[in-house]
Amino acid sequence: MSVTSARGFRASGVTAGLKASGRPDVAVVVNDGPLQAAAGVFTSNRFAAAPVLWSRQVLLDGEIHAVVLNSGGANACTGPEGFADTHRTAEHAAGALAKQGRDVGAGEIAVCSTGLIGERLPMDLLLAGVDSAVDCLAATGGGDAAIAIMTTDTVPKTAAVSTGGFTVGGMAKGAGMLAPGLATMLVVLTTDAVADPAALGSALRESARLTFDRIDSDGCMSTNDTVLLLASGASGISPNHRELTDAVMSVCDDLARQLIHDAEGASKDIRIDVVNAATEEDAVDAARAVSRSNLLKCAIHGEDPNWGRVLAALGTTAADFEPDSVDVAMNGVWVCRSGGVGDDRSLVDMSAREVFLTIDLHAGEASATVWTNDLTAAYVHENSAYST
Amino acid sequence: MSVTSARGFRASGVTAGLKASGRPDVAVVVNDGPLQAAAGVFTSNRFAAAPVLWSRQVLLDGEIHAVVLNSGGANACTGPEGFADTHRTAEHAAGALAKQGRDVGAGEIAVCSTGLIGERLPMDLLLAGVDSAVDCLAATGGGDAAIAIMTTDTVPKTAAVSTGGFTVGGMAKGAGMLAPGLATMLVVLTTDAVADPAALGSALRESARLTFDRIDSDGCMSTNDTVLLLASGASGISPNHRELTDAVMSVCDDLARQLIHDAEGASKDIRIDVVNAATEEDAVDAARAVSRSNLLKCAIHGEDPNWGRVLAALGTTAADFEPDSVDVAMNGVWVCRSGGVGDDRSLVDMSAREVFLTIDLHAGEASATVWTNDLTAAYVHENSAYST
Repeated sequence: MSVTSARGFRASGVTAGLKASGRPDVAVVVNDGPLQAAAGVFTSNRFAAAPVLWSRQVLLDGEIHAVVLNSGGANACTGPEGFADTHRTAEHAAGALAKQGRDVGAGEIAVCSTGLIGERLPMDLLLAGVDSAVDCLAATGGGDAAIAIMTTDTVPKTAAVSTGGFTVGGMAKGAGMLAPGLATMLVVLTTDAVADPAALGSALRESARLTFDRIDSDGCMSTNDTVLLLASGASGISPNHRELTDAVMSVCDDLARQLIHDAEGASKDIRIDVVNAATEEDAVDAARAVSRSNLLKCAIHGEDPNWGRVLAALGTTAADFEPDSVDVAMNGVWVCRSGGVGDDRSLVDMSAREVFLTIDLHAGEASATVWTNDLTAAYVHENSAYST
Repeated sequence: MSVTSARGFRASGVTAGLKASGRPDVAVVVNDGPLQAAAGVFTSNRFAAAPVLWSRQVLLDGEIHAVVLNSGGANACTGPEGFADTHRTAEHAAGALAKQGRDVGAGEIAVCSTGLIGERLPMDLLLAGVDSAVDCLAATGGGDAAIAIMTTDTVPKTAAVSTGGFTVGGMAKGAGMLAPGLATMLVVLTTDAVADPAALGSALRESARLTFDRIDSDGCMSTNDTVLLLASGASGISPNHRELTDAVMSVCDDLARQLIHDAEGASKDIRIDVVNAATEEDAVDAARAVSRSNLLKCAIHGEDPNWGRVLAALGTTAADFEPDSVDVAMNGVWVCRSGGVGDDRSLVDMSAREVFLTIDLHAGEASATVWTNDLTAAYVHENSAYST
């Protein structure tokens, strides 16, 4: 159930001292092949962090031999010096792997960082950590790697699925700054399927679009989001597009739900289904607007079925609908019908962790689902003292 | 310093019993002329409340003789029945004014409501309250009116300016759901200047665009926002466009700042200045994106100069800038230079209530200012138990 579930991968996680907490903070994942095909999706934030700029470049030839990940510092907004730090990290990892007889260039090693924006990384600690992580690489190291990439996560996130003779596994971190395009996360997925970079890219993009891009915990987009999919081909199995995509989707969906469930300070996981929209884009826009209403998120935290806040958020969108045709259900109770008062709001029981909103736009046949969280005093507390 | 500061206006505020708290909840403002010219701006939310739909219609001929306002219920998302309730309120007010010998039709009376969305108003209580408020109308009643429109406001908001022989006064309510387009608010402005509806509309739109539309406390747009400007002409003074606009702007600015200062749960007022933008629209977009970052707002609550969150928010916009040219100052300390690390963040003192962010895009000569608040546990608490 991790990045080492698929054959052909080794991983590790060690403590380099980047985090004041003294917890593990450097992970390495190595693809031992025979293939080194890869694909990735990255943040659309214009202040992309140095490791994002680097890893995009590494992916240009569709190959990744290894991934170095660190928590304890995002290396974002650190200028040319920060980019040089990332480059140096990849060079150093290549050197460490060479000592194991592995001939790999820095340009084949992706780098991911997560933590505070706007601080240089302590390179002496990081590079020593990379050495140590390379020393610890093991085919059973996926669990350690998942632990080493945690920031405010309270639990490591891993998943895997085996089907038709091949396996897709993965790990994720991300608990705050979770918003689409992508959500704030580092994710490494591995598979032993035989697949070329184009097939991996297609499967990854389709999966990310419906999973990581549809979770929006706090509306804030990160500078470091990276999702990588590495294929070793070690199973010898060549799944078709549908088989590969289904397996990747399944792991992405599992990890995405784990991210929402562990979002900073959250006490509720809120599923927003927009149905009967004119287009999928409309459905996503509407769901997204609702997922970003602080007032609604506070109300749900208080288990208050304040459906007026759903409509107030919907009313800010350009989605195709007639205001007096919209119905809204909270946990199955249609509290709003035809844009007005529906069933008695006191019938809604919101005591469970999961809360389900259904918004029927009566404008077409498209639909979309977005997951978000409630807004809590714990979220405020956690994020009011992060860098200090 | 209120809606009755300008000559030609009477107002009142009474307790009708709409609020469980037993606080005043119905206000009336009457324009005794000689003119009854008026202009208004309203929410752009597609779920506009019944009183917004009604008052827009009243304004079609550029005249308002009186305004009835209630707190304790928004009469939003209440369907045709809710609209009939608003119509009935105006009819009833016309009848009550007729008893005082004032010949005014329902179609000349604007209505504003604020409170919970999705509940019908208790009309028996409201109409009795209108009778009582009309009975209490006085040229000194502006203060009472300002109190009667409060919801979660902790203080009434009033302002006035006298210049060149004429006066502009006003009152406002609004403490949550404060976001532009407009911010969530009810505002009634009065002036004894001689001005026609076109001049009033022009002055009001220009003023609202730079004041009420530039405060964004929590990113949530209301269904009931209404800003009305009524002119009695009682001063006999006909200011030119600039004189009138400056006076209206001054009162709007004063009230807008009062709204931000009393925003729900806020402990900081945050001024975001975007400078050297390519266009004013870019500057507003950039400032708005920053004002809506929950993570940044939490950081500022914790007096943590976490400037990476400013960039992360900026990076989601389409404003014209080069990421490696952007500078950011927090309370005058340039903590970010050229998109990277600038002066020591520990130099930033954020202990005062007001926090100033300056974002230099180095992309042109336009600028804009948006005010917002921090995000606090008190905001969460206040909004997690509003309707229950």
